[in-house]
Amino acid sequence: VLPLDAAVMSAAAERQGELTKPAGALGQLESLSVRLAGITGVCPPSVPARPAVAVFAGDHGVVRSGVTPWPQEVTAQMVANFLTGGAAVNVLARQVGAEVIVVDVGVATPIPPIASERLRSRNVRLGTDDLAVGPAMSRANAEAAVLVGLSIAQDLVDAGHDLLVTGEMGIGNTTPSAALIAAITGLPAADCTGRGTGVNDETLALKTAVIDRAVARCRDLSDGIDLLAEIGGLEIAALAGFIIGGAAAGVPVIVDGVITLAALLVAEQLAPGVSEHVIAGHRSTEPGASIVLDKLGLEPLLDLGLRLGEGSGAVLAIGIVQAAAAILNDMATFNEAGIA
Amino acid sequence: VLPLDAAVMSAAAERQGELTKPAGALGQLESLSVRLAGITGVCPPSVPARPAVAVFAGDHGVVRSGVTPWPQEVTAQMVANFLTGGAAVNVLARQVGAEVIVVDVGVATPIPPIASERLRSRNVRLGTDDLAVGPAMSRANAEAAVLVGLSIAQDLVDAGHDLLVTGEMGIGNTTPSAALIAAITGLPAADCTGRGTGVNDETLALKTAVIDRAVARCRDLSDGIDLLAEIGGLEIAALAGFIIGGAAAGVPVIVDGVITLAALLVAEQLAPGVSEHVIAGHRSTEPGASIVLDKLGLEPLLDLGLRLGEGSGAVLAIGIVQAAAAILNDMATFNEAGIA
Repeated sequence: VLPLDAAVMSAAAERQGELTKPAGALGQLESLSVRLAGITGVCPPSVPARPAVAVFAGDHGVVRSGVTPWPQEVTAQMVANFLTGGAAVNVLARQVGAEVIVVDVGVATPIPPIASERLRSRNVRLGTDDLAVGPAMSRANAEAAVLVGLSIAQDLVDAGHDLLVTGEMGIGNTTPSAALIAAITGLPAADCTGRGTGVNDETLALKTAVIDRAVARCRDLSDGIDLLAEIGGLEIAALAGFIIGGAAAGVPVIVDGVITLAALLVAEQLAPGVSEHVIAGHRSTEPGASIVLDKLGLEPLLDLGLRLGEGSGAVLAIGIVQAAAAILNDMATFNEAGIA
Repeated sequence: VLPLDAAVMSAAAERQGELTKPAGALGQLESLSVRLAGITGVCPPSVPARPAVAVFAGDHGVVRSGVTPWPQEVTAQMVANFLTGGAAVNVLARQVGAEVIVVDVGVATPIPPIASERLRSRNVRLGTDDLAVGPAMSRANAEAAVLVGLSIAQDLVDAGHDLLVTGEMGIGNTTPSAALIAAITGLPAADCTGRGTGVNDETLALKTAVIDRAVARCRDLSDGIDLLAEIGGLEIAALAGFIIGGAAAGVPVIVDGVITLAALLVAEQLAPGVSEHVIAGHRSTEPGASIVLDKLGLEPLLDLGLRLGEGSGAVLAIGIVQAAAAILNDMATFNEAGIA
């Protein structure tokens, strides 16, 4: 992944200083506009007009160890909900005219037969094995899932999408996410593990113990593929590939909550520097999310107490990203407005 | 102002619990959707489709006491910028399809002659007197300005706008805003006073001293009109009326930064309970903004380090407000989606 374009970023920062407002008065919108210029290599950066949300779905063998109260079948049922357009991510995407696609990269149970152009059937395997007792999958599985994400990003860019948004669905997937974050940051599982979509104290203690044991089993903590295979998930691997694919294509990628942030940490191992090309959509309430944001120096755009996943927080941030680009394109300069 | 509709809010909260997501997973979006139902008296609340931003402009005699480095003429020049569509608020409003109107309620210097349907010429007087040395204006002036805001809100609602957004422009207007906040909260000026659009240490000390002296002069701190006349501003008075007008019409009002929050504090004195009908668009970096948000128990939607005014932060929040309403309207329930 190439570094951000420093010359274009300088030009963008200079232009910000000429617009009809006190210097710095638009805060994070200004720094975001400069990063967008650097990511896309153009100043002013064009206003993203065709955002696409890719929701990667996969299942997790670790649900058999009791880390979540939700049955595994809900993953496939929610995929159906995405396909028929009734989920939160669909509603939020419609509000901003973003396309939603759903990528089955590892759903374990049958997806209800719904004819939908949104579905991409790229199932690598029917869910992972239980990471509490052994590797979640093989290295070959992890590599295949990463490549699914890469190719989906490339397909969307080829189709003209100019802003990529990460989403996911997978019952139990806060467990591999917290495990990856613990493994890569070196923090204990207790710091990285949250309640996901509503676990009680007992389940939280079990989930934390499962994660600590699984991380202790990992041999090479600097090998992203190895980590994905040992303690990761199929949709997480695909998300890592998707993020790298967007960054490599010069298209900004908005990341969502703790699952996509875990994928981003892995992506940073596979392609150092990739996180510079990424925009943090929001700060999820899951503790692992803030750990990754801090580690990578990413300042999220929203902090609305969300913990849903699906890409919901990232989609909500699309309007802010468009606004930042529009400011740099469309505001009058002091000269143009005749203001001294 | 009527209290929020408790029955409709209960229905909205119940509906949130039936949607295909873990309870509470959409955080502030959920509580906002419930408030929108209460404000509009409808469940689910309709998604606001015709937002309007009213930018109230006025000048301030206190600039003669040296509280800002910007010349007073910039108010009129920025009004011209709003009319031609080159200011930040115009750019941000266009992104979300919001109409912008500009209300001259007290600009002191001539507004460049620009033919624009956006302009509402409702000048009460050519700026205030210097509040550092005496009352900013008469009670009659303050009342007239409040009534301008009320009638503008009513006009916009009559024209079919279903979401009102507050904006303002007035060189020097962080000084009367901080003064009103200090007077109503009882806090010292040093706590309420910020650097506005870029004052240095010396000017900040002078500004703080001016505010403390002016507040000490006020007789009845519970009389909103008296406070506006003694230490307020024409656009601030109009904003107070505008907020009350929107609330009385059952239309949600998004407030912006420290100037509109000062107006909201006054509005709360004139019409107790009005702040329940208000949505805080963002947390400005001005210290007075957080003081008012905390005092009124308002949780802002955005925190992007903005300190521009014009309504910029409130306009950025329009998409979040629409999203909250859309969630309650359009998401599938567990029943509808066939999820156990």
